[in-house]
Amino acid sequence: MKLSQALLNQNRLALSRILTQVENNSESGRSALNELFPHTGKAHLIGITGAPGTGKSTLVNQLALYYRKEKDYRIAILAVDPSSPFTGGAVLGDRVRMRDLSGDPNIFIRSMASRGSLGGLAQSTVAMVQVFDAAKFDVILIETVGAGQAEVDIAKLAHTTLVVEAPGLGDDIQAIKAGIMEIADILVINKADRPGVENTERALKGMLELAHPTRRVFQHHGQRMVVEAPSKAEEQNPIWIPEVKRTIAKDGEGINELCETIERHLTFLREGGEWVTRERTQLQSTFDSLLRENLFTRFLDELSPDAYEKTLSKIMKREESPWGAVEKILNGRKV
Amino acid sequence: MKLSQALLNQNRLALSRILTQVENNSESGRSALNELFPHTGKAHLIGITGAPGTGKSTLVNQLALYYRKEKDYRIAILAVDPSSPFTGGAVLGDRVRMRDLSGDPNIFIRSMASRGSLGGLAQSTVAMVQVFDAAKFDVILIETVGAGQAEVDIAKLAHTTLVVEAPGLGDDIQAIKAGIMEIADILVINKADRPGVENTERALKGMLELAHPTRRVFQHHGQRMVVEAPSKAEEQNPIWIPEVKRTIAKDGEGINELCETIERHLTFLREGGEWVTRERTQLQSTFDSLLRENLFTRFLDELSPDAYEKTLSKIMKREESPWGAVEKILNGRKV
Repeated sequence: MKLSQALLNQNRLALSRILTQVENNSESGRSALNELFPHTGKAHLIGITGAPGTGKSTLVNQLALYYRKEKDYRIAILAVDPSSPFTGGAVLGDRVRMRDLSGDPNIFIRSMASRGSLGGLAQSTVAMVQVFDAAKFDVILIETVGAGQAEVDIAKLAHTTLVVEAPGLGDDIQAIKAGIMEIADILVINKADRPGVENTERALKGMLELAHPTRRVFQHHGQRMVVEAPSKAEEQNPIWIPEVKRTIAKDGEGINELCETIERHLTFLREGGEWVTRERTQLQSTFDSLLRENLFTRFLDELSPDAYEKTLSKIMKREESPWGAVEKILNGRKV
Repeated sequence: MKLSQALLNQNRLALSRILTQVENNSESGRSALNELFPHTGKAHLIGITGAPGTGKSTLVNQLALYYRKEKDYRIAILAVDPSSPFTGGAVLGDRVRMRDLSGDPNIFIRSMASRGSLGGLAQSTVAMVQVFDAAKFDVILIETVGAGQAEVDIAKLAHTTLVVEAPGLGDDIQAIKAGIMEIADILVINKADRPGVENTERALKGMLELAHPTRRVFQHHGQRMVVEAPSKAEEQNPIWIPEVKRTIAKDGEGINELCETIERHLTFLREGGEWVTRERTQLQSTFDSLLRENLFTRFLDELSPDAYEKTLSKIMKREESPWGAVEKILNGRKV
């Protein structure tokens, strides 16, 4: 209880300790989450994802610096690296990052590598974000590397998702974009001083049309045209059409404009019902995952270890299929 | 029953149908898996993973052609694309592939995009592989795009995992390699006619040393030297030191040598206990996942929808945390 109270009073050491407890999924971590939960729901969660080489970390640094200088916000950065299940690429990222941001007591940086299953990672991210939220950080920047399902899952956590691209990463990258495109609220073309930036922008806008076919937006001689008329439902609940922004993060260029777009997205979320909808979806998925995990653990606890081993050995001998065995073991369980 | 029998008799239409049933996780799919399971456990599962742009698909085509020509094996290719949760990049891959391989009745190609959760994807992949295995394919090539946790999970399925790299994909790619490195049985440098191939090879070998520190292998003037003496345990159970192979898949160069290495790895697996160990791990994880999913579904079925909704709404109001709510709902359930 004392540690949670210290965290609510913005004590950094308490924050560090609770984050570790939570990451380790310890008993004390779970009870801290329980105590802190009533104090959550205020922070703006911004997800930043994209392939390696797009300059994501530099961009995240610049966003943090902007919010510190322009808004005096308290900023947490959570760098999640699902691509390092074993050893820590994330740690290296921290060192690079530290040069700009260290020493500011209103910035807190934490990195996390995937240790167990991916489900576990998304679960830990949810919990870590709750802790930051309770500790009264105004903005939580959640950075993920790559463009796979892991990023999609983690992006679902965020209120605003930035997908970062860079010119000249090769045509093959296009294939990977289709999925990630549909989670982007804002598309950032970083390293916009590189050659090929026009091509990248054209390609991204083309993909946006494919990803959001309900309301086609065309560029026509540089002019933005909405071709299909919005439906009645859309008029009542306006939709967010992802915007494409250029930045050169290493020089701080385009950051102000990007942050204004993020702000507009936040207003859109709050004024429509979207903020509440996303929160509900997210809390429900947290609840479901926890329920799933606990049901499994409890079932195994109740089952004799012998019964589990016997079933497994039948499966190994192919006397029973995993599908059939599950039916049997569940129908035979003591109720 | 008839459909399963047709599949066991290597009927392609039956195979297609059952794959679809299984991918949709339908009742008929589960019962087919049940019937087919006793006929599984024979195929050699080869996983091929790597970043976009490394020429994975071309390499997979060449492997398939090699096994057809040199060994007269029946080959299944399962292309899994975890990066396209929404729309099908995988389909495009198929078209490219078809030119070389279509028309051969002993090659079967199927692609799969991630539809739901990632857990679901790994689960479907397991099931699809079981179907191919029962249909008496000698080798099943499982191709995944990217280098995230999804690939790691899917690679765990395979007996032999190839990680494909290409020279000149940029230094940033290095960061992503640390994790994927530890799942590689064979590292393939494809597009080996590109400049920078020596650097890539040096980097990969350096990373291998980091990933397998129990037995350091150094290149010394081109000579392979094991510096640390193997331990007693290692002498009894020799370990596999991942090998680095160069290929130019588009010209078919290096494919024979690569396939010989794959063959050596297979022998290693079969002669040590590794084949059985991997099979056990994989079957146990399938069993656990199914158990988890079924426990959850059954619990929700037994629970009144009202109780679930009430809990969720308390969580939304932050009167109860997801962690606390799970405790309550599980302790209060009717036994």
